[in-house]
Amino acid sequence: MKKEKQPHSTLSASISLRVRFSETDALGIVWHGNYIKYFEEGREAFGRKYGLSYLEVEKKGYATPIVKTICEHKKSVRYGEMLRVETYYIATASAKLHFRYFIYNEADELVCTGETEQVFTLLKDGTLSLYKPLFYAEWEEKEVKSKI
Amino acid sequence: MKKEKQPHSTLSASISLRVRFSETDALGIVWHGNYIKYFEEGREAFGRKYGLSYLEVEKKGYATPIVKTICEHKKSVRYGEMLRVETYYIATASAKLHFRYFIYNEADELVCTGETEQVFTLLKDGTLSLYKPLFYAEWEEKEVKSKI
Amino acid sequence: MKKEKQPHSTLSASISLRVRFSETDALGIVWHGNYIKYFEEGREAFGRKYGLSYLEVEKKGYATPIVKTICEHKKSVRYGEMLRVETYYIATASAKLHFRYFIYNEADELVCTGETEQVFTLLKDGTLSLYKPLFYAEWEEKEVKSKI
Amino acid sequence: MKKEKQPHSTLSASISLRVRFSETDALGIVWHGNYIKYFEEGREAFGRKYGLSYLEVEKKGYATPIVKTICEHKKSVRYGEMLRVETYYIATASAKLHFRYFIYNEADELVCTGETEQVFTLLKDGTLSLYKPLFYAEWEEKEVKSKI
Repeated sequence: MKKEKQPHSTLSASISLRVRFSETDALGIVWHGNYIKYFEEGREAFGRKYGLSYLEVEKKGYATPIVKTICEHKKSVRYGEMLRVETYYIATASAKLHFRYFIYNEADELVCTGETEQVFTLLKDGTLSLYKPLFYAEWEEKEVKSKI
Repeated sequence: MKKEKQPHSTLSASISLRVRFSETDALGIVWHGNYIKYFEEGREAFGRKYGLSYLEVEKKGYATPIVKTICEHKKSVRYGEMLRVETYYIATASAKLHFRYFIYNEADELVCTGETEQVFTLLKDGTLSLYKPLFYAEWEEKEVKSKI
Repeated sequence: MKKEKQPHSTLSASISLRVRFSETDALGIVWHGNYIKYFEEGREAFGRKYGLSYLEVEKKGYATPIVKTICEHKKSVRYGEMLRVETYYIATASAKLHFRYFIYNEADELVCTGETEQVFTLLKDGTLSLYKPLFYAEWEEKEVKSKI
Repeated sequence: MKKEKQPHSTLSASISLRVRFSETDALGIVWHGNYIKYFEEGREAFGRKYGLSYLEVEKKGYATPIVKTICEHKKSVRYGEMLRVETYYIATASAKLHFRYFIYNEADELVCTGETEQVFTLLKDGTLSLYKPLFYAEWEEKEVKSKI
């Protein structure tokens, strides 16, 4: 499912973040579960850039809960390091949001990769949307298909 | 404001918890901010015992957001330790919930003390309750005043 | 890679845990990244049961950092729920620890599944162990192979 | 102990941060314990500006574990908000580091105040330093006393 090389998507966003001391563990490195927060930072940076953030999706009456996460660690990260999260949008036919993440350290070494899948649910009652919501289909038309 | 010795309240609850690896930091000890989670575990153990948990308060139409926390560390705690959180209810005349916490390790050494203050707000619009809500005044009458 | 049905391993452990309020998010459900903590709780319950916990591995001079995590959500979980984490050991020929997780709610519904892979590194300098460390090969001989 | 108005210290640092979705709770606001992370971000911004960060102190052979935290909430904060953490150094005669924090939202409203106290311990064995370590006394001489 995951490929090491970066996808040829034209849609991506980059964000830098500083590792917090509270994110390290007794091994002296970033605790592995904290990368899920970095993915979310990357995804929201993408969302703000392209009009698909949690708050914008919420205004349309939807939530986009995560249904799957994959996270692979290539190199450990210590306190004091700055990281760069590259987030790539992966087009998919199903009613899902699919992102791929590549996290680099300051030496530009790949430290972590990952993927997430999100579904669309109605905010008012949590109903799963079996089809792409109209606002998202339109977003895709405008941002993705028009650029291929 | 805080006294080392335990208050003479008849209302208290005790809960045991195991330190999580994710709660340690690069110094090899529990990261100081994680004790706020232990206080909340203690407070909710109290709430379940005496009918004042978040979920029960919510059913009455209220939230009880924290407005003040004090946390003092006496001894560091490492991964693998079991902790015991003792939570004491502190009666107060104002429309607030006031708790005091004492956390002990397995050797029964005091590792952390703390206090929290919570106000009552209406769930529907967040309005601060200037008086003790009726359900809470009744709870106090039944659980606290009747026992003095 | 992941199969829905539980593996036919004789080695597994079960642990119950209560969702913490701090683990919920603004959607009112457990934030997806917190399940990684539940996996670790399950894995450590397994470790304590079978003599393979972080602290026991540390005594042998090794750390077992996570190199891959997969997490899939079947159903959302709210504050106040009790969860049961079932952790299964997956035998593998490589110098890795492989676990599979099944998390159930109180109604015994499957809410989350997952997998983790860990490598062995020397505590003293972080060197990756290309072969199964002796203590682990012996553990495997005793706990896994003898039971097949 | 705490005063609302800002101290007249010449030593302070300011940092902006974006609230993470994972930091919100089921009430839709930032979970109160997460402000301790914001204090640490502020303190480390101060440390980087004035040469007193965790990593710099570590090079001198010391750790500075927190022994006391006070946190007061004036206004709740929601996902999507940007915060500004102002960190003030408070001079003290004892062998402690004392900081005061003021957190503001984008409308420049004060949302949270706090204080922390840290002691100096030797990294090699955890011994508490009863006197100000030489490196810190020199830092104080240079950065604080010379400016009064």
